[in-house]
Amino acid sequence: MRRLVILAEGRFSVHGAKTAVGVLRFSPDQTVAVLDSTHAGQDAAAVLGLPEVGAGVPVVASIADALPYGPTDLLIGIAPIGGRLPDAWRPILLDALAAKLNIISGLHVFLNDDPELQTAAATQGVTIWDVRRPLPDYAMRIGQGTPHPAGSRTVYFAGSDCNVGKMTEALALDREARGRGWRSVFAATGQTGIMIAGVGVATDRVISDFVNGAVEKLVLDLAAEYQWIFVEGQGTLCHPAYSAVTLGLLHGARPDVQIMCHEAGRTHINEYPTYPLPSLRDLITMYETAAGWLHPAPVVGLALNTVHLNEADARTAIEAATAATGLPATDPVRFGSAPLLDALEEWFAGQ
Amino acid sequence: MRRLVILAEGRFSVHGAKTAVGVLRFSPDQTVAVLDSTHAGQDAAAVLGLPEVGAGVPVVASIADALPYGPTDLLIGIAPIGGRLPDAWRPILLDALAAKLNIISGLHVFLNDDPELQTAAATQGVTIWDVRRPLPDYAMRIGQGTPHPAGSRTVYFAGSDCNVGKMTEALALDREARGRGWRSVFAATGQTGIMIAGVGVATDRVISDFVNGAVEKLVLDLAAEYQWIFVEGQGTLCHPAYSAVTLGLLHGARPDVQIMCHEAGRTHINEYPTYPLPSLRDLITMYETAAGWLHPAPVVGLALNTVHLNEADARTAIEAATAATGLPATDPVRFGSAPLLDALEEWFAGQ
Repeated sequence: MRRLVILAEGRFSVHGAKTAVGVLRFSPDQTVAVLDSTHAGQDAAAVLGLPEVGAGVPVVASIADALPYGPTDLLIGIAPIGGRLPDAWRPILLDALAAKLNIISGLHVFLNDDPELQTAAATQGVTIWDVRRPLPDYAMRIGQGTPHPAGSRTVYFAGSDCNVGKMTEALALDREARGRGWRSVFAATGQTGIMIAGVGVATDRVISDFVNGAVEKLVLDLAAEYQWIFVEGQGTLCHPAYSAVTLGLLHGARPDVQIMCHEAGRTHINEYPTYPLPSLRDLITMYETAAGWLHPAPVVGLALNTVHLNEADARTAIEAATAATGLPATDPVRFGSAPLLDALEEWFAGQ
Repeated sequence: MRRLVILAEGRFSVHGAKTAVGVLRFSPDQTVAVLDSTHAGQDAAAVLGLPEVGAGVPVVASIADALPYGPTDLLIGIAPIGGRLPDAWRPILLDALAAKLNIISGLHVFLNDDPELQTAAATQGVTIWDVRRPLPDYAMRIGQGTPHPAGSRTVYFAGSDCNVGKMTEALALDREARGRGWRSVFAATGQTGIMIAGVGVATDRVISDFVNGAVEKLVLDLAAEYQWIFVEGQGTLCHPAYSAVTLGLLHGARPDVQIMCHEAGRTHINEYPTYPLPSLRDLITMYETAAGWLHPAPVVGLALNTVHLNEADARTAIEAATAATGLPATDPVRFGSAPLLDALEEWFAGQ
């Protein structure tokens, strides 16, 4: 069992540190400290404003300040745009390696390919896990368009945008599905999901020719062991930068049905203020159309991220989403996943 | 000026050696021999059954047999599925390097990363050009969704499938457009196109997160110098393996209009016999829908590859395509590009 210190320097917040928050919320590993010198001395849950995430975890200013808590690994919990290693992080990583901590990194740039870090890790006898590096079986696999085994149930978590809660909601549904006794699994397709699940494929790091094939293999491998596969989506089909990732993932996953994930109140693509989001109805049409080019997959429910709303406004937003689309909706993290699990069960029962 | 020997061992034919045929048809470099021991002694044009492509170029059985024709470069003219180097080719490449030929390769696997080949090239003082390796400026560029300069005209060559003639038709239109005095350019997005044009980005080799951004930069760079940009499409949106490449390319290119490319008589995705092609009308809707998620781009004409038909059947197929879609159609290679250039000119005049 790992004991993590999570690097979130200068950016420890719900939106600024998606990986840190996901790991705090869902990882089986224990987080012993969060490193963000701008919030040092506070409790992680207080900084996030989420009472249930990071309660009792201290925020510290440096690796030295984290060491008394007995960490075994430094996990990079923030993602710089473009995925390169910021210069300011290098001394922190070297401090961690000098203290014999392993490093877990989801950067696009592989830290194992960095001579200075690689040498330091080897000298200290610790490891660097580049989570985004595709495993050899996935790296150059051509998609086959193989149908799934009879009886398997693949659910794709479509998104209106990046960072709206697709991973969190897929994990929440998987947890609750297992609670119902379903043989379900979360299929991780991004670096944070892989850190939590331990396996998966970082779709956005795969060479574009092999995206469909890598995801297809991930889902087929899981379908050999599980009945329900909750596939984490990435990006959105109308994203100026990441639509290639999204479509390859959707087609490679070959879902039977989809859950549409959206953050209540989001009106534009994040960081692309001239790109408005389509309406929920148009998003549903968009994903159903694109899936249907290969294999039909209706959207059967909505997962709404209401983290920025008070409870009354959250319930109003959920009701409005249902009214606009005719589909069951919930915030799975806040109010539980029952309406969506019920909708899934009902849909498959009707097949 | 290069003098090429084109490697097409065992597969020199119109469909088996797409790169070889594209280079023979369009490259400014001179091809002095084609290497395919199964057709040695024949004339390249006779093997292809295309009187205008490869006439007078001998097919030879080995590098040794090619040397009397004075080659400077060995160009790999066939693409193994998956892009790896077949074992059988290694001795041929080593023979070429031993004879001081440069190597031009579009494989997914970079020959410059192969110690044996790299050492042999260095020893002989020759170079290996890995055409698919993205230039540093393109390799990790995030898409911005930047509008094109006013007055620029970007045309995307959409395809019903791989290997239907998108590159050939884009090159044919570009050549004829320049003949009309238009300031036009061919934007190469695949290895063969780059071998011909000298520049471009091999979209399918770019990490999926950066596909849109790499293509966007290619088109914006060309738009700074040219008015008309004919963008080579890749794959198809309903391809089980390559749809990620196609959508990222379509969105990154941000075309104003599209030309739909199709091979007359093709009914299924090549090598995927359980995946039928949509009708031409449905293909048009599919591409217009997907482009429209970011920027509208109507399909204004059809480029039909009729290489397998006699002339009468070709004309019938072209008329049928127009009847089915209401759009102008031609085989640009066989009958010239005039109907499509006219349609493009008319569409932009109406804006």
